[in-house]
Amino acid sequence: MALTQWGVVLLLTIVAVEPASSVPSIIQITPEKGTVLANDGASGSRRSVDLYCESWRFTVETNDAGLWTRIPGRCVDFVKDYITGERYLAESEAVADNALAHAKVVGVSGNGKDAWVFDIDETLLSNVPYYAAHGFGAEIFDELSFNNWVDLAEAPALLASLRLYKNLQELGFTIFLLTGRSEFQRNATVRNLQYAGYSNWERLILRGDADQGKPASIYKSEKRKEIEDEGYIIRGNSGDQWSDLMGFAVAQRSFKLPNPLYYIA
Amino acid sequence: MALTQWGVVLLLTIVAVEPASSVPSIIQITPEKGTVLANDGASGSRRSVDLYCESWRFTVETNDAGLWTRIPGRCVDFVKDYITGERYLAESEAVADNALAHAKVVGVSGNGKDAWVFDIDETLLSNVPYYAAHGFGAEIFDELSFNNWVDLAEAPALLASLRLYKNLQELGFTIFLLTGRSEFQRNATVRNLQYAGYSNWERLILRGDADQGKPASIYKSEKRKEIEDEGYIIRGNSGDQWSDLMGFAVAQRSFKLPNPLYYIA
Repeated sequence: MALTQWGVVLLLTIVAVEPASSVPSIIQITPEKGTVLANDGASGSRRSVDLYCESWRFTVETNDAGLWTRIPGRCVDFVKDYITGERYLAESEAVADNALAHAKVVGVSGNGKDAWVFDIDETLLSNVPYYAAHGFGAEIFDELSFNNWVDLAEAPALLASLRLYKNLQELGFTIFLLTGRSEFQRNATVRNLQYAGYSNWERLILRGDADQGKPASIYKSEKRKEIEDEGYIIRGNSGDQWSDLMGFAVAQRSFKLPNPLYYIA
Repeated sequence: MALTQWGVVLLLTIVAVEPASSVPSIIQITPEKGTVLANDGASGSRRSVDLYCESWRFTVETNDAGLWTRIPGRCVDFVKDYITGERYLAESEAVADNALAHAKVVGVSGNGKDAWVFDIDETLLSNVPYYAAHGFGAEIFDELSFNNWVDLAEAPALLASLRLYKNLQELGFTIFLLTGRSEFQRNATVRNLQYAGYSNWERLILRGDADQGKPASIYKSEKRKEIEDEGYIIRGNSGDQWSDLMGFAVAQRSFKLPNPLYYIA
């Protein structure tokens, strides 16, 4: 919610009032207007937009939405508020908590063959600074400008994932990084991962020439299969896209991180 | 986020300040400590409970949470407000919209072999009246009292699913109902479905003696496989549990409905 990087500070004051009704209702906050809630027509419309965008996000995060190319125009403010606010952080932390709890239950066998697979973009690294400059997913994906952003190697860590990553290493899991980025981006990717605090992964797997054009779910399933064929047991898999997690050679448990910015098949 | 039903109003003010740095960073807010936001301990705590429960629900709906037996005690009000409020309705409608859009795209082949599989509880029928009397998922599931509720045959339709059901029939899809309920509940289930407005399904599949004790994901996969072996193509599958949708013989597209009340493996 509070975002010094965009030069905005939110000051919040909390005031107790009477419950409006015994029937539950969801109130939309309109910080842009500095108004609060309530009963006028404008807020009502804002409220219905919020409800629409909440519902849209449900279908995105559960994969009900299927293929989509950009966020709904009316949800730009909603996605911005979500992705730059505390809810994204809190949901990511909750996913990391679940992943860590699973890791502790399954434990490691001691032969170094207990693997954990991480996706990179919107899983280990956050491209929110890039998307903030590109409409929070409202613009059609532009590969050229995104690749320029990747070359900067300045994406910050998703803090919840950095914590999970380090805890898994302490527990003895072998870490594989499996990304849709291409081999030509290896150096920038390594540089960015190190900048963000990641180290000591077992292998960084990027798309090679033979992987170009494959759907992510196929490419990633094939690579997980190769990991399994080396004798590893993939105890867990963390990713923000369902295509990171589904297909074949799936992990014992998969952990879906939130991402309302974009969809990858 | 802000919630008149909890007697809380958030007033937001926005102040422009200098960007703290040109390097993007993610700001961690710690509402539990009241450091960033609120001045009021009680409200800050309510807000952090809301954030906790939102995050918990994310992990439930994405299957990140894995096995759980009851909702967190602190989320009873949150789940009550959600499940009795407009957000549950809106999210269910959004899922139905996605399902219907898919159905229209794939169409029917005209040989009657285009199948759609529906779960029943929290998919076609709503047991919210039962759960409202049992802590909205805060109580451990009590089979005896739930079976008494089933015998009443008074569960209302989930309206979004009833709309989808009728639209799919008009489009020519063959409807299969696949439920974790048992054969001894067939009569009550048929009565309830009719009471709620459903009719003309192809087959109602309940657990027989051989299915008892199987995980739902196995039982339901086996039954979908039998449907496929009869020559049907399962174009879509609607269910509120991941175990309705995953496993083998999965549908071309699966549609996960919201359900923060309970988990079925």
